Amino acid sequence: MSELKAQMDQLGQAAKTAAQDLALAPADAKNNALIAAAKAIRAQLPTILEANNKDMIAAEAKGISSAMLDRLALDNDRVEAMAAGLEAIAAFPDPIGKSLKSWDQPNGLKFEQVSVPLGVIGIIYESRPNVTADAGALCLKAGNASILRGGSESFHSSGAILDCLQTGLQEAGLPVAAIQRVPTTDRAAVGHLLTMNDYVDLIIPRGGRGLIERIQTESRVPVLAHLDGLCHTYLHEAADPKMALEVVLNAKMRRTGICGATETLLVDANYSDENLKPILNALIDKGCEIRGDAKIQQLDSRVKEASAVDWDTEYLDAILSVKRVADQKEAIAHINRHGSNHTEAIITASDQAAAAFQQEVDAGIVIHNASTQFADGGQFGMGAEIGISTGKLHARGPVGAYQLTSYKYLVRGTGHARP
Amino acid sequence: MSELKAQMDQLGQAAKTAAQDLALAPADAKNNALIAAAKAIRAQLPTILEANNKDMIAAEAKGISSAMLDRLALDNDRVEAMAAGLEAIAAFPDPIGKSLKSWDQPNGLKFEQVSVPLGVIGIIYESRPNVTADAGALCLKAGNASILRGGSESFHSSGAILDCLQTGLQEAGLPVAAIQRVPTTDRAAVGHLLTMNDYVDLIIPRGGRGLIERIQTESRVPVLAHLDGLCHTYLHEAADPKMALEVVLNAKMRRTGICGATETLLVDANYSDENLKPILNALIDKGCEIRGDAKIQQLDSRVKEASAVDWDTEYLDAILSVKRVADQKEAIAHINRHGSNHTEAIITASDQAAAAFQQEVDAGIVIHNASTQFADGGQFGMGAEIGISTGKLHARGPVGAYQLTSYKYLVRGTGHARP
Repeated sequence: MSELKAQMDQLGQAAKTAAQDLALAPADAKNNALIAAAKAIRAQLPTILEANNKDMIAAEAKGISSAMLDRLALDNDRVEAMAAGLEAIAAFPDPIGKSLKSWDQPNGLKFEQVSVPLGVIGIIYESRPNVTADAGALCLKAGNASILRGGSESFHSSGAILDCLQTGLQEAGLPVAAIQRVPTTDRAAVGHLLTMNDYVDLIIPRGGRGLIERIQTESRVPVLAHLDGLCHTYLHEAADPKMALEVVLNAKMRRTGICGATETLLVDANYSDENLKPILNALIDKGCEIRGDAKIQQLDSRVKEASAVDWDTEYLDAILSVKRVADQKEAIAHINRHGSNHTEAIITASDQAAAAFQQEVDAGIVIHNASTQFADGGQFGMGAEIGISTGKLHARGPVGAYQLTSYKYLVRGTGHARP
Repeated sequence: MSELKAQMDQLGQAAKTAAQDLALAPADAKNNALIAAAKAIRAQLPTILEANNKDMIAAEAKGISSAMLDRLALDNDRVEAMAAGLEAIAAFPDPIGKSLKSWDQPNGLKFEQVSVPLGVIGIIYESRPNVTADAGALCLKAGNASILRGGSESFHSSGAILDCLQTGLQEAGLPVAAIQRVPTTDRAAVGHLLTMNDYVDLIIPRGGRGLIERIQTESRVPVLAHLDGLCHTYLHEAADPKMALEVVLNAKMRRTGICGATETLLVDANYSDENLKPILNALIDKGCEIRGDAKIQQLDSRVKEASAVDWDTEYLDAILSVKRVADQKEAIAHINRHGSNHTEAIITASDQAAAAFQQEVDAGIVIHNASTQFADGGQFGMGAEIGISTGKLHARGPVGAYQLTSYKYLVRGTGHARP
């Protein structure tokens, strides 16, 4: 066994032991740890910024993109946001030990389904150092131990943040191994993490498609992943024009780089040109490139020609593909073929059309008369989220603390033997 | 691409298309299909028995074990039980389209979580031909298409049963591809099935540990599995002796070959020898071999010596390992170390001891004052079950129709743009 493998196994064993303690930890202890960690983060601001500065210098020397540098950079505000995030998670209700369901059987046996933690969660992410705090805290809230593996660019920043989380755990009397990280930037460590079924119950990757696909292929541990966010907004014939304008603009342009941003606008054949034109106009005015089919191109000379690949492209940018569809049926067929089961929306004044759309579209989140950018755990009232699951197993849609739990059945008898 | 791979892809594509239809099928259509299938099974009794006879002759010629022959054999009663099973599943409430939760956010957005099918489920099982009917029907009930792969020994029997299921689908106007099977006994077909992520959402293996482990290692599709059933019963110091005798006898001897059978009895140091002796005596009288630690061996000369491996052995036979533990803490530590997270029981008159046991033991089912043999979806009131999951992801414990579902979020606004 290689030294690295032995080191990883030790990490896994420590996490498993910590998870057993955490599963029985009272809500107060977990919340105290989060509040103490927030305090430590504020107190260690200079140390964190210094560590981040080391990472930034190394990253610049490596010539990484400015977008990635921006994700990596920390400043006073971002560090304060991290601390505040921990306090917000502490303030949520505890998701563990809740009675989810209870019933009696005719023979008098009493059944109760109760929420419990999942166990040990491995989080693999890219450059944002704040994920260290967010993910570690959310796992802790749900009674899970976590093993964090951030991008190598953020190694020093993540280390400084982890120190604060572990200070919090210590002050609350919880095992420090409840939140650990892979102590090396060696890529082989990820390979080991993905095969540690004996210690790790779930892997959550956060990052680009390449990372996610690699992990889904390699992992022997179950993976909860967010793949693509190719979201559509469909303008039904009964869409209110003013609402359509406002919602589409928001769905595309509020933030173009998030997974809930609309990438394709489908317009019903019976939604008039005169109501569509102002939408295209407003988008273009705001700097959005429009790629349309032939019918859309006729409406505005600035519309570029959409190619087949556009209907399958998640731009994450100020670009929108726009297509006329014959009717709602064609809209739904297009979505179910090209969508990514993430978030889909219909704008219509017809409740009947909305109900059919919401039933027939296969996606984690199906929205009526609102922006697809509401696809976010915070907007759902879940508080923090660790991501949005595009799979159907275990958790679908936003993954908050509650989605990081499992359950057990408690059965109570009076000496029942099975006939 | 090999011919087999192409054939499997075609099967997967057909299943996926069928699943899209099934997801929108009304409860009545699904139930009508099940009722019509039951009718077809009764009508085709001679055909089914003839097909089974072919399988039995081939199996005998291959010299397979008598236990396996028994699992393979069909007769009038077993065929009738299959038909009745389909009707029972038809009679359950529909698990799809249920509102699981709903809430409003302060901004007026309305949220609803609604149950939906998982999609396409691959079922891989061994010799019992009745699994063809049970598994296909349970998947259908939850709106899922299924691809069945039974053991090669039951190939003709399963084919005859599948014909009846497809007759039912046809009569109800549902796609025949809603229940398909791998049309070859070529083992390579399983390899393909396990990598068909584009078409298959979940794999459920049913069989021995070897089969399950092979599938968990090979599968690129998520697996919901039952691994071991190493169940314990713990006699607490406050256990009622009469109840203890009755429940332990049932937990071990009612049926020794099922996963919920107790394999190890843990006896508290303060549970008296005079109350323990009659239990050992009754077990031995019923033909149970006892393997005990030194303290247990002293009680009865017929008790054999337990070796270290006994504490990790799921006998599935009339054998019980028995150990004295110092206290409840040691009992729980033993269970969490040697158990398989399946079903664990405590016998005690102390509600406090029971509550601590139920909280601290990490298992899908934790029972107070009843036999571990109640670990069964039917006994839980779920009606049919496809097995018991020993993992913590998605479903834990008995897997019935409801556990074969996912959910989606419906969001309703009035033109909400995200600030």
